[in-house]
Amino acid sequence: MTPTNYAVTGFDAAGIAANIKKSGAPDLTLIASRTPCRAAATFTQNAFPAAPVLYDRQLLKFNPEGVHGVIINSGCANACTGTPGDVNARQTAEAVEKALGASDHSIFVMSTGVIGVQLPMDKLLAGIPKAVEQLKPDGWDAASRAIMTTDTRPKLFTRSLELGGQIVHFTGISKGAGMIHPNMATMLSTIVTDAHIAQPLLQQALSYAVNKSFNCISIDGDTSTNDTVLLLANGAAGHAEIIDATTRSFEVFQATLTAICTDLAQAVVLDGEGITKFVTIRVNGAQDDHAAHQGANTVATSPLVKTAFFGSDANWGRILAAIGRAGIKVEPEKCALFISGGPDAATRLPELQLVAGGTPLNYSEETATMIFKQPEIDVRIELGLDQGSATVWTTDLSYEYVKINGDYRT
Amino acid sequence: MTPTNYAVTGFDAAGIAANIKKSGAPDLTLIASRTPCRAAATFTQNAFPAAPVLYDRQLLKFNPEGVHGVIINSGCANACTGTPGDVNARQTAEAVEKALGASDHSIFVMSTGVIGVQLPMDKLLAGIPKAVEQLKPDGWDAASRAIMTTDTRPKLFTRSLELGGQIVHFTGISKGAGMIHPNMATMLSTIVTDAHIAQPLLQQALSYAVNKSFNCISIDGDTSTNDTVLLLANGAAGHAEIIDATTRSFEVFQATLTAICTDLAQAVVLDGEGITKFVTIRVNGAQDDHAAHQGANTVATSPLVKTAFFGSDANWGRILAAIGRAGIKVEPEKCALFISGGPDAATRLPELQLVAGGTPLNYSEETATMIFKQPEIDVRIELGLDQGSATVWTTDLSYEYVKINGDYRT
Repeated sequence: MTPTNYAVTGFDAAGIAANIKKSGAPDLTLIASRTPCRAAATFTQNAFPAAPVLYDRQLLKFNPEGVHGVIINSGCANACTGTPGDVNARQTAEAVEKALGASDHSIFVMSTGVIGVQLPMDKLLAGIPKAVEQLKPDGWDAASRAIMTTDTRPKLFTRSLELGGQIVHFTGISKGAGMIHPNMATMLSTIVTDAHIAQPLLQQALSYAVNKSFNCISIDGDTSTNDTVLLLANGAAGHAEIIDATTRSFEVFQATLTAICTDLAQAVVLDGEGITKFVTIRVNGAQDDHAAHQGANTVATSPLVKTAFFGSDANWGRILAAIGRAGIKVEPEKCALFISGGPDAATRLPELQLVAGGTPLNYSEETATMIFKQPEIDVRIELGLDQGSATVWTTDLSYEYVKINGDYRT
Repeated sequence: MTPTNYAVTGFDAAGIAANIKKSGAPDLTLIASRTPCRAAATFTQNAFPAAPVLYDRQLLKFNPEGVHGVIINSGCANACTGTPGDVNARQTAEAVEKALGASDHSIFVMSTGVIGVQLPMDKLLAGIPKAVEQLKPDGWDAASRAIMTTDTRPKLFTRSLELGGQIVHFTGISKGAGMIHPNMATMLSTIVTDAHIAQPLLQQALSYAVNKSFNCISIDGDTSTNDTVLLLANGAAGHAEIIDATTRSFEVFQATLTAICTDLAQAVVLDGEGITKFVTIRVNGAQDDHAAHQGANTVATSPLVKTAFFGSDANWGRILAAIGRAGIKVEPEKCALFISGGPDAATRLPELQLVAGGTPLNYSEETATMIFKQPEIDVRIELGLDQGSATVWTTDLSYEYVKINGDYRT
């Protein structure tokens, strides 16, 4: 399905071991653009943003058009670290700028790992020249591995499109959903593209794509202190600059960016800790899209619904009860509920309706259970009120989740 | 600690087996007042209210001063049951009114159990005369047992106060927290008192007490379709009627009512499924009480925080991250976090401060772990902004919770 060539014109990537992690596993990723590129980003809404998030927010305001790359460490989140943490984030960026020979204020910083511990700056600074040395156009596999914490596999995707006869490439990496490990934090993602696009449109496209992808996943409902999605565009593909959001060019750019963000976001869910099921919750017929999202999200984060997925129990009562407490407009007599499932997205058992008019139909419990035993489950809730709709991807809640998160940090 | 005499002048109670539950366990509770009494109630905010909730809401509006009691069945929630469910709730109330020789529109109805199944009316109607026969002033133990579903023990409390030389009694029963059993629903509570108090003040006092007690507990964050707290006051204690909310009489009535509601609410948490820890989350220094409650509640419902309690891991990073995503005003540099714990409320290890100014102190990890190993844990979060404060009672999230809720319904 996915091409094996992840290269994007003008970008290099590397991933090395800098001994920030005690295990000796790779823990330092560098992504660099040979020419200045434009950046867009979305950051955590958490009121305890980590030092790199604070640094990146300022950088994005100050210099969104002269960016040279991003340095990402795993093993330490640099969150709840006060002023020394802020200084360390800045010094990391400056060290990379110097090592690359790049201009000032051109490098973003991301961190993921333990909260409340200062970055081991000696190890990090010693690792930077090593990472620079390893930079290469096909360094993406190494880059995607060095940002992993409890992830069981790297998340690396590429997409392309044609604009004015030129091929435009997108390559993206992401890691770990929510705060999935004891005291580990963070969903991080970096996407690079050689598209040529005005910076405000780049931000507009990223914000839209993140809303339709990363903001539609939930493993445990916990938002980390470090969540960051960064998009870099260097314009190397050679097509005419996209400067108008109403053009066909922007439309296809938006669609492809949303697609790769969805690839990355779904991969994060599929690697959620303790997961045995991948679940899609669709809510249609809500008052508006926002209400639909709130409804789908309440179902997706309900421990009772998630344990029912784990137990392969088509427990529609819990799903309706969750929708009912979502704080959105619901008229029980207009509600319908459908389920389907299968081994993967391509193969699905026929959809089965469980509820009509807010009360259960006389369906086969055996068929419903067979659907809920599938590794991928779709739940469709029709509210019958208006045109609002939303889709959220989530997982079940398993023994293994409790085990992973209940174990002591050390 | 608690007195063994639960009698309240003028009230009788009974609990019998009507074979609504397949197990043959008691499943029908009747509480009756010999004279007309005044009622107040609070109901679920869920958009799928069960049939008895819809019936009771109407009854409370129509006849809040001529009430004769309440009939409660377990084993079937009468929720998502459409028009037949509404008819069954009404017919249940009417059958009790007839059997008691009480006036029309004087009996409340509550149900708890499986969602989406119609009440077995033949069994229920056959059980009513049996329950009436069993009514007696000390029938409270039986009454508290017949409302249990997955509860492991009955929840029955009494409190008293003196008003104008007369002793005023309160006796209350409650059951099951949240939606704790596969497809079982409901937190139900009924409290009776012989206090003499105007009905609007009765409702005011109950709404306040419920906000400070039942609305401050969370086991799994799921609000059921049937949640109801009912308060009946028959005025038999013989003191002067409380007609003014600014008097000392109302103040002590309010305090005692809040105390018994807190007894009942905490008992529900202590019997939460799979619970190994009873946790109190206090938030002080918030912008206002509402913000404090939202912050405490976000911490109390975070799966990551709850699994850390289960694992005895004093993981303050998760607690701060949860406060940070609560959607309330937080200034990290003003935040402090303290923990204490002990075998029970009376015996506590000294309080230990983990965080000051949003960053960790150099505390003893060993002491912190010892505190988190206690069966009762207190977490105090100081936001340092203003006077808002709130307390929420919750539990850990254990393997057993996943097991109970992941098992198939049958």
